[in-house]
Amino acid sequence: MKTHRADLLVTNGIVLTINSEGTVIEHGGLAIVKSRIAAVGTSAEMNKWTSPRIVDARGGIIMPGLINTHTHAAMTCFRGLADDLPLMNWLQEHIFPAEAKLDEKKVYSGTLLACAEMIRAGTTTFCDMYLFEDAVARAASAAGIRAVIGEVLYDFPSPNYGDLERGFAYTEKLIDTWRDDPLITVAVEPHSPYLCAPELLQRAAGIAHQHSIPLVIHVSETRSEVEQMQQRYGRTPVGFLAEHGILSSNLLACHCVVLSEEDLELLKEKDVKVAHNPESNMKLASGIAPVPQMLQHGICVGLGTDGCASNNNLDLFLEMSTAAKLHKVSTLDPTVLDAKTVLRMATIDGARALGIDRITGSIEEGKAADIIIIDIRQPHLTPMYNPISHLVYAAGGGDVTWTIVNGQVVMADRRLCSLDVEKVMDDVKRIADEIRSG
Amino acid sequence: MKTHRADLLVTNGIVLTINSEGTVIEHGGLAIVKSRIAAVGTSAEMNKWTSPRIVDARGGIIMPGLINTHTHAAMTCFRGLADDLPLMNWLQEHIFPAEAKLDEKKVYSGTLLACAEMIRAGTTTFCDMYLFEDAVARAASAAGIRAVIGEVLYDFPSPNYGDLERGFAYTEKLIDTWRDDPLITVAVEPHSPYLCAPELLQRAAGIAHQHSIPLVIHVSETRSEVEQMQQRYGRTPVGFLAEHGILSSNLLACHCVVLSEEDLELLKEKDVKVAHNPESNMKLASGIAPVPQMLQHGICVGLGTDGCASNNNLDLFLEMSTAAKLHKVSTLDPTVLDAKTVLRMATIDGARALGIDRITGSIEEGKAADIIIIDIRQPHLTPMYNPISHLVYAAGGGDVTWTIVNGQVVMADRRLCSLDVEKVMDDVKRIADEIRSG
Repeated sequence: MKTHRADLLVTNGIVLTINSEGTVIEHGGLAIVKSRIAAVGTSAEMNKWTSPRIVDARGGIIMPGLINTHTHAAMTCFRGLADDLPLMNWLQEHIFPAEAKLDEKKVYSGTLLACAEMIRAGTTTFCDMYLFEDAVARAASAAGIRAVIGEVLYDFPSPNYGDLERGFAYTEKLIDTWRDDPLITVAVEPHSPYLCAPELLQRAAGIAHQHSIPLVIHVSETRSEVEQMQQRYGRTPVGFLAEHGILSSNLLACHCVVLSEEDLELLKEKDVKVAHNPESNMKLASGIAPVPQMLQHGICVGLGTDGCASNNNLDLFLEMSTAAKLHKVSTLDPTVLDAKTVLRMATIDGARALGIDRITGSIEEGKAADIIIIDIRQPHLTPMYNPISHLVYAAGGGDVTWTIVNGQVVMADRRLCSLDVEKVMDDVKRIADEIRSG
Repeated sequence: MKTHRADLLVTNGIVLTINSEGTVIEHGGLAIVKSRIAAVGTSAEMNKWTSPRIVDARGGIIMPGLINTHTHAAMTCFRGLADDLPLMNWLQEHIFPAEAKLDEKKVYSGTLLACAEMIRAGTTTFCDMYLFEDAVARAASAAGIRAVIGEVLYDFPSPNYGDLERGFAYTEKLIDTWRDDPLITVAVEPHSPYLCAPELLQRAAGIAHQHSIPLVIHVSETRSEVEQMQQRYGRTPVGFLAEHGILSSNLLACHCVVLSEEDLELLKEKDVKVAHNPESNMKLASGIAPVPQMLQHGICVGLGTDGCASNNNLDLFLEMSTAAKLHKVSTLDPTVLDAKTVLRMATIDGARALGIDRITGSIEEGKAADIIIIDIRQPHLTPMYNPISHLVYAAGGGDVTWTIVNGQVVMADRRLCSLDVEKVMDDVKRIADEIRSG
């Protein structure tokens, strides 16, 4: 008896709920009503549901969409512009001159391309820090992907808003514009302890606190940054943030590559969240973040790709694989960061890191329907002893067939529904031509 | 005027030749006559060629197929069977019991699946070490992929051939059976210094020398192996091989994770080749091979995936990305293993490592037509400033659209031509069911 009516049913898959018990339903599905998950269960349990629209997972994996806790989406415009260079040379001779050519329109186009790439790779939420973030929010909204966005703030004038006072005004306006948006959450985003004076940081933290929104910042990405802070303030970046009262449970500290034991204890004590970006940290030769120690301390760690200039893709499946393997070899212990732990980092722990775990990050009744389907009927995913192993160690973003965000299908059988992908690619190709021509 | 006739033309792409000058043809193609490359050039230069069969690269990248210098193909049967475990537990409680159930038929099926996966990911040559290698050769031959194969030899009886004397007979028979085969090269493959007595190694080296074929061996994969050799013989594994006259230019030493400065000098002096398997070494927490030092010494290093039980896929694009990033972070130098170097490791240097660089590894007239095409019209490969950067840092095996081996199209627009991939997957699923049921 079909007694319940859904707007969309996802059927016939292995459901990884990523709930607190890690429940796996060997053969099941879920029902979506409006934007939310109305029911999850075995195929027998789901039999009472009917819907005008049914997506058949064909025996694949049904799971929560992945959460990218740190990126600079519009940097797709600079993908592969310069690699294999010393950090300062890379930044000053290649990235900064290219960024000087950005404007709101280019950031919009670059972000749309990033959204296309992320949706195709099963990412349903990203956290962004960049310039012209209103354009980022509009692009994410147009693409139908969930995003936490915030305009970068620092001690010097910005190519977007000019002087800092206007940066705070821009941030307040973002908060006002996007309040109650179903997909967009605004965050306050000071760049880093080394580019932000204590007053900037305290004012930023005050705004975040007042609106109960995330505060996002780069912290301890490189050794030279930590040395610089030690020389200037006699403190590690984390110690400096602690001294000024910035550490709190709504703070997302991105990178945290170089941490002391005291830093780890401070992060844990204040319930600060961490965004771990292993591929970017490797490619820029920044170092290996002490993630196993963070987890031992009980710190919440999400995964991020960082921007396309230092990765050079936005595929969180590859980031999961790299994270799991990198920490094994760096500790010489094959048991650290097991597949289950890493999958949680890329889903529910990422949602916690962004303060949106009541909304997304797992398949549970009442949460937003942020869902992806993985096609496991492929040579490189055959045979399958354990779906979680495959997701972390064998799959890639190209194995995602359907992506649903907030109940809306944004990719159907690998076809993007919300974007004209050909136009999106052509627009960024033209931007690249401009950058290339100097 | 179409004055030249080819069996197959590949047109309209960016040709990365990977020849000694690293020539890139911005808009060009190549002509194939029978199994060989008859001409390479710009689109204008190729205008004189005609053919009944034309493959349009549609502006994508035309390049030599990738070369996997170390794998155990049939271990696809154990993909994801056990992960995140201490090495001895993983081997003794999971891999060895599963391997005890193997037979010639299962190795054939598992290898066919590996071939399907590799062809789909742009690999055109692999070097295999396992049991029942005649089945591996037959599977590779049926799939139409180039392979260097050899039966593993060690001091104890084998589930395939029984005692060692029969192992040598089996190897001699392989050499005899596959002599002059267009795709298969037989190698002599003693397992490792710690599982092979000096007499075994010397006899194996003698056979390889007599037939001018490769000698393939695992060397210095883990610290415990090196300690064991030091205790038993007072030598490092490389020192031990040197002492017994095994080091030579036809020796492929797989892994080489733990090397002393003296080991590096010995490898260079004897022109020994190395197969580097970064993802497997990371996942098993074996360590980080000193590849930058090997390259400084002028040692030829190819890339390998190792088997699917420790990777867990056979995608050399991902292996390139990992190799480039891993050595940057381990040396804290972003300039080491640049994209161009890593791409050569996965192509021409891999061919040199296997002693087949006269046949494959680059696009040059007279070489076998082992060619792949990469579709760059995709969000994650847009824009493109530098094709080599994209191949190493942004692409994956799923971006390969056409794979040609020895002049034969084995994948056309992502469709496998030489294999019934559904049957291949079903066969290995049944093998996995058997393994799973204990």
